[in-house]
Amino acid sequence: MATPTPTPAPTSPACTPAALAFGGRGGFLLARARVGPGAGGRWVVRAQPAAAELVERSVNTIRFLAVDAVEKAKSGHPGLPMGCAPLGHVLFDEFLRFNPANHAWFDRDRLVLSAGHGCMLHYALLHLAGYQGVTIDDLKAFRQWGSRTPGHPENFETDGVEVTTGPLGQGFANAVGLALAEKHLAARFNKPDLTVVDHYTYVILGDGCQMEGVANEAASLAGHWGLGKLIAFYDDNHISIDGSTAIAFTEDHTIWVQNGNTGYDDIRAAIKEAKEVKDKPTLIKVTTTIGYGSPNKASTHSVHGSALGSKEVEATRKNLSWAHEPFHVPDEVKRHWAHHLEEGASLEAEWNAKFAEYEKKYHQEAVELNSIISGKLPAGWEDALPKYTPESPADATRNLSQQCLNALAKVIPGFLGGSADLASSNMTLLKMFGDFQKDTPEERNIRFGVREHAMGAICNGIAVHSPGLIPYCSTFFVFADYMRAPIRLSALSESGVIFVMTHDSIGLGEDGPTHQPVEQLFSLRAMPGILILRPADGTETSAAYRIAVINRKRPSILALSRQKLPQLEGTSVEGVAKGGYVISDNSSGNKPDLILISTGSELEIAEKAADQLRKEGKSVRVVSLVCWELFEEQSEEYKESVLPSDVTSRISIEAGVTMGWEKYIGQKGKAVGIDRFGSSAPAGKIYKELGLTVENLIATVKSL
Amino acid sequence: MATPTPTPAPTSPACTPAALAFGGRGGFLLARARVGPGAGGRWVVRAQPAAAELVERSVNTIRFLAVDAVEKAKSGHPGLPMGCAPLGHVLFDEFLRFNPANHAWFDRDRLVLSAGHGCMLHYALLHLAGYQGVTIDDLKAFRQWGSRTPGHPENFETDGVEVTTGPLGQGFANAVGLALAEKHLAARFNKPDLTVVDHYTYVILGDGCQMEGVANEAASLAGHWGLGKLIAFYDDNHISIDGSTAIAFTEDHTIWVQNGNTGYDDIRAAIKEAKEVKDKPTLIKVTTTIGYGSPNKASTHSVHGSALGSKEVEATRKNLSWAHEPFHVPDEVKRHWAHHLEEGASLEAEWNAKFAEYEKKYHQEAVELNSIISGKLPAGWEDALPKYTPESPADATRNLSQQCLNALAKVIPGFLGGSADLASSNMTLLKMFGDFQKDTPEERNIRFGVREHAMGAICNGIAVHSPGLIPYCSTFFVFADYMRAPIRLSALSESGVIFVMTHDSIGLGEDGPTHQPVEQLFSLRAMPGILILRPADGTETSAAYRIAVINRKRPSILALSRQKLPQLEGTSVEGVAKGGYVISDNSSGNKPDLILISTGSELEIAEKAADQLRKEGKSVRVVSLVCWELFEEQSEEYKESVLPSDVTSRISIEAGVTMGWEKYIGQKGKAVGIDRFGSSAPAGKIYKELGLTVENLIATVKSL
Repeated sequence: MATPTPTPAPTSPACTPAALAFGGRGGFLLARARVGPGAGGRWVVRAQPAAAELVERSVNTIRFLAVDAVEKAKSGHPGLPMGCAPLGHVLFDEFLRFNPANHAWFDRDRLVLSAGHGCMLHYALLHLAGYQGVTIDDLKAFRQWGSRTPGHPENFETDGVEVTTGPLGQGFANAVGLALAEKHLAARFNKPDLTVVDHYTYVILGDGCQMEGVANEAASLAGHWGLGKLIAFYDDNHISIDGSTAIAFTEDHTIWVQNGNTGYDDIRAAIKEAKEVKDKPTLIKVTTTIGYGSPNKASTHSVHGSALGSKEVEATRKNLSWAHEPFHVPDEVKRHWAHHLEEGASLEAEWNAKFAEYEKKYHQEAVELNSIISGKLPAGWEDALPKYTPESPADATRNLSQQCLNALAKVIPGFLGGSADLASSNMTLLKMFGDFQKDTPEERNIRFGVREHAMGAICNGIAVHSPGLIPYCSTFFVFADYMRAPIRLSALSESGVIFVMTHDSIGLGEDGPTHQPVEQLFSLRAMPGILILRPADGTETSAAYRIAVINRKRPSILALSRQKLPQLEGTSVEGVAKGGYVISDNSSGNKPDLILISTGSELEIAEKAADQLRKEGKSVRVVSLVCWELFEEQSEEYKESVLPSDVTSRISIEAGVTMGWEKYIGQKGKAVGIDRFGSSAPAGKIYKELGLTVENLIATVKSL
Repeated sequence: MATPTPTPAPTSPACTPAALAFGGRGGFLLARARVGPGAGGRWVVRAQPAAAELVERSVNTIRFLAVDAVEKAKSGHPGLPMGCAPLGHVLFDEFLRFNPANHAWFDRDRLVLSAGHGCMLHYALLHLAGYQGVTIDDLKAFRQWGSRTPGHPENFETDGVEVTTGPLGQGFANAVGLALAEKHLAARFNKPDLTVVDHYTYVILGDGCQMEGVANEAASLAGHWGLGKLIAFYDDNHISIDGSTAIAFTEDHTIWVQNGNTGYDDIRAAIKEAKEVKDKPTLIKVTTTIGYGSPNKASTHSVHGSALGSKEVEATRKNLSWAHEPFHVPDEVKRHWAHHLEEGASLEAEWNAKFAEYEKKYHQEAVELNSIISGKLPAGWEDALPKYTPESPADATRNLSQQCLNALAKVIPGFLGGSADLASSNMTLLKMFGDFQKDTPEERNIRFGVREHAMGAICNGIAVHSPGLIPYCSTFFVFADYMRAPIRLSALSESGVIFVMTHDSIGLGEDGPTHQPVEQLFSLRAMPGILILRPADGTETSAAYRIAVINRKRPSILALSRQKLPQLEGTSVEGVAKGGYVISDNSSGNKPDLILISTGSELEIAEKAADQLRKEGKSVRVVSLVCWELFEEQSEEYKESVLPSDVTSRISIEAGVTMGWEKYIGQKGKAVGIDRFGSSAPAGKIYKELGLTVENLIATVKSL
């Protein structure tokens, strides 16, 4: 059998991270416990683990699939898969509930690899478990163009990968979102006689994840919410324990697997104990050797992110007595893992039978849950969206947004969300629901505290839990900067989160430049895979929400005003769906003298200027370019009908930087905007001083 | 005297934040200690505090200056200043060492209001202390256009304000940077007989700051580095103590001022004790009543961010026996605070005398320290920058960057920095220096761990500590997303940090789309007040560092390649200084058939395509647009000489989104770029598949 050489003791890192702490008043579980020798005696050993020899062969199969794939790609991270293979085997083979034939089975356990660079661990496990999306050829194509095994886990590429990870800390926060979704749905739908929502969320994280602020934020919330079915494994492979910190953080329920390399029974017992803890998340520290088995590179930095090299691969094969060719899966390992196909099918069948009964007994609930599971929106949901006319009272789009949010939550069962401690400013409260909290998880208002970064990442997790969960989250637009990474990941991973960003310009006034977005619109318009919508009034706000809900694979950012705006003539739901459209025009033959293009709160200014210019005899068209991405998707004919290329007199007005407007105004046009930071003063005064006025717009027209 | 009405007990918030924990192996101090009744007995009472009655009048003066200013502005945050006025008075009047006549005195104590919304507290204190930049008229112009008293503290507007705060958590991390700078300079320059660097850094934070991940990251580093002269006050005004958390976090040196409303002696004693702790930062929890003195609004949410309203202002005046008109400063309060002018002058004079002696005894050190204090760069520093020729070997710009960093650190005394755990990938190590650590603070390589957000904010703090400190920080370009808020604040607050961003495109290869920036260039070009430089080879990299160092009020982002690039003919230091310039041309009369415009790693492709097209008889110009911001600042004549408006055949090539390029290619031009997320594959393969090749560029030319 395998006889690993002794590996060097873990060394001290340059930076000792503060341990990750789950927050909450019910106590917490922490990474760095001091569990004395013999504490392992508490563990209950699993009744029927696979024979020890078979387990070790399976574990080595996982190790070498990773080693060989990285070696073939000449790039990748062998260290984590080699070190975490024992944990991976035990968790996936003995605990995880899944159906390889249907990766989307609703009630599966979720597994997130937050330390995404170790993805070969996950691919190897998915392959062994029988996922058809990860064949041996896929493993051989690791990190190659067009493969289903990219360099970091991507949910949109690989069946069985729940979220897209790699940027550190995100996966952990996603897992908090997944666990939140489970707790919420379980509270809403389970009945005393029928439990239809019941799964765990597991997440594996490294020291890098722990150092990231987003993980601290998310851990605080996980503890506060009492997410008892969230089990996090900290792959402790080279960070030494800070004595005093460990002492300060000792708690009864902390779990430390001291020998994550060969202590299979300890791993089993730790997971069992964690599953028994129902009222709080658990963090299991698993001490492993990075690159376990490599005689010369284990426990070194070089094994983290580089191929071992052919010589060391051979040495590792010898060391672990693995005399097989690359990518070999021994028959007995294959035979062992094969049971998951049958077991998975039977798990799902059992659940299907239970759900069939549920549908009979609890028809209304089943309809709602089905909508969440399938992502099919209830018929007629769009009719619930509020309608406005030019006669409707002037209002801030953030207020109009609240009317939309409340209307949608009434008709869409999976609609839920909240704000980063600004609900009363963002106007995001759902009035018919209470707060999602530890003891009221069936409610739909999520209070994220001042934790924008975790908020975004948690919403990404909620969104990928079930196709019909539509999370929204909210803060001041300028603080999109705090959550840019999860916004990007929402776009990349097709999570469809709705980002409600209020106070979207200098129009917020006195709080000054730290709170006034000027470059955020463009900085986000530059991002692929996301819609940026900046509605101008009630009709456009309602239409923007319609777009956001329809786009389930593409997140939306709604940029909304703090200040009151009039309801405009000419705005329309159909127009918003096309991204850009004519809202007023006194020209004929598609040849106006001038086109004014605007978005959001400045559309009013464009309209007023147009009115005045028309009185002076000019033919003027006003275009609302509410969503550039949708406009770009329209036909050339449509675009030409809105912005005829012959008309080069074009002026844009928007309360933000002008960079990028050249696309629509051309080199002969002019852009009225703000190419500087804002200022602290009443909103009207700033608009005036920075030239966002009817007068300045008309003066700019005359300067053309 | 004042007889405040009893205020309601603090209520539980929706979210209980995990307490802020200072990291580090030397133990830490924490926010939420359980200090039993009577623990106050440990405090040593200050020998000669101002008479109790006078202190109370001063405190009420501060309260009402804040109340009146917010009332006049009809906007602002009265709650924190009313609650923290006692702390503010004691700290500023009795402990802080400063010279009101010279806010830039080098060895002053630094005070940061991380809870920036409470800025009227700081403005009132600066006014009382005699800062000429904050007159009573300035207080009356609070939050008005052009005033020196904006809605959040802005270092570039108000003398005495050290950093720009408001976005929560940033100020705390800035303070860690200020304290790091002090510890570093003290270790480098103090002599056994002459202490020329010796000041404290104080920071006031609220619960919002504590919840933010950036504060967790920064606290972890502050503890790790043993920043003993960092003293943080947590304004505990409405967060109740989580019993179990408090128990778990109890430590010997934690300080809790239980009565921050009237316990002046406790406040004094707490600060004294904190100052005695030399080996670790201290967090003092000061329990206060938000809006203290307001009979109907104290301890309520409404007093946080809104004016009290005239009726409640009157009730508060009555409650606190403050019968004065708005903005009144009683004569005895004025007289008391007046001593700071004299005291400050004498503190600085004393220091000046000491420094004069230092200059005599330690000439070389004094020259270096003077450069750091004044910001005057040593003569001839530019000569140290490496020079390259077309014959120099091909290399990745991240490697060339390391040569520049090392060259600059040799000649610029205040040059220091590091990476977020990627030093060996970012190539940022200064080879002649060791690591800045708790016991080696004189060294200049800062190890930030995987904490991008805090890294940026800490560097902002270092930069504003002294004009001659030039911090740089580094991570993969895509993770600029994690630190976008501090990048923005660096630009807004004129901090001049150098952001070294490597792996700047799909050229990083197999790690895939989560690690490949595509929109980051534009998203940052949209930001005001910052330079984005994307050099193409050694000459441009060296020139980019020259620009970055010269621009002391404007931060720079250097986007650098992971992959090897050839040294190009035609690149030049002078050209880079203009932001855009011609690197090759075979046309005459400023009328090429075609202009190819590019940046960074794609400039090589443009050059190769131009060569081929020239062989086919075309006249082709290649332009390096290495820094758009600098190019925009050039004269119209210069810009016309590079991009003549008559030449409309223009093609850009850049490995990023094409949005924004319309500005330079016009509506008839074409942009070759990447309007999607990247992919996991070897770099060359991705370049080919996404069309960033000579062949595709030539095909695009022919399609024009």
